[in-house]
Amino acid sequence: MVEPQSLEKLISEFASLPGIGHKTARRLAYHMLSRSRERVVSLSESLLAAAEKVKPCSVCHVYTEVDPCPLCSSRAGAKIICVVEKSSDILPFENAGIYKGLYHVLGGVLSPLDGVGPEALYIPQLVDRVRKENISEVILALGSSPEADSTALLIDCLLEDTNVTRTRLARGIPMGSDLEFIDEITMLRAFESRVAL
Amino acid sequence: MVEPQSLEKLISEFASLPGIGHKTARRLAYHMLSRSRERVVSLSESLLAAAEKVKPCSVCHVYTEVDPCPLCSSRAGAKIICVVEKSSDILPFENAGIYKGLYHVLGGVLSPLDGVGPEALYIPQLVDRVRKENISEVILALGSSPEADSTALLIDCLLEDTNVTRTRLARGIPMGSDLEFIDEITMLRAFESRVAL
Repeated sequence: MVEPQSLEKLISEFASLPGIGHKTARRLAYHMLSRSRERVVSLSESLLAAAEKVKPCSVCHVYTEVDPCPLCSSRAGAKIICVVEKSSDILPFENAGIYKGLYHVLGGVLSPLDGVGPEALYIPQLVDRVRKENISEVILALGSSPEADSTALLIDCLLEDTNVTRTRLARGIPMGSDLEFIDEITMLRAFESRVAL
Repeated sequence: MVEPQSLEKLISEFASLPGIGHKTARRLAYHMLSRSRERVVSLSESLLAAAEKVKPCSVCHVYTEVDPCPLCSSRAGAKIICVVEKSSDILPFENAGIYKGLYHVLGGVLSPLDGVGPEALYIPQLVDRVRKENISEVILALGSSPEADSTALLIDCLLEDTNVTRTRLARGIPMGSDLEFIDEITMLRAFESRVAL
């Protein structure tokens, strides 16, 4: 063992992060050693501060520092809920600035093989919100995996006896892409859902 | 601004790491939120511990927790010094297990454009060690950039009046590589340095 123990520990901590392999972890750890103490402390404290302060909103489960979150408070009374898998999925909506309704984070999608059943997700809470907040539309924005599809199907069933409109995002060719490189399933869906000019 | 402030801070901290772009930084930050508090604390503390405990050895400037470092202590009296640019450059030597001599980390290579002159590197300390420790060979293991070459040249000049043998690592075709993809300069060097069978 050439590396000092606390350096090895730091390397293995970095290597435990998603998408960071052992070589990158080593590079990051050596980089930290070359930084000023203040900047190491700053990263260290930011980690603790984020873990301490940021929690899921008790209503919509979007990460927030205040409860209920600014989105829930500022859009109280909105009649549309956009259902997403995880908190970061709301970013493209907010960045596009096209949506001014509420959100609901499920915390995942159904995945029976990994032991994720309906009770592990915030699905009952969604049904509850739809009934109590007098929601008129639920937009299912859940990605396009088979797991996401079956999750959407379950939610659709559970909301069947309410009057709420259920929609999902359109599927098709993304902007700016070359037709030549579109995969078969996307092409199939875009073809089936073709619209009149 | 959709993301809570402490989450944004953490994202920008991650994004300041080398090779980590904004998207990866966001992914890492959200990942930290989904971790248990203990594991966040563990990373946070590992950062502080490494910054606190790991310092360059006062003799060879390899990162260490004890001073002088285990390499300097266990190999005291060795007559060969291998000169490297940075501490992590000793790993391939130690991993190959081929070298049992001393090391000397320069802390960089000459780079006049970036304001790195000889006085910013541990070159005087190297000359000192060569004289005082009665060294017989200095191996310059400094990479193959023009900056590394001029650093090696300077050290070679400074050691000229000692009796020390100066060597550098061989340059040529690396193991396992396909000739087709060897760059021109490597090929030129391998050709010029060809050896009799």
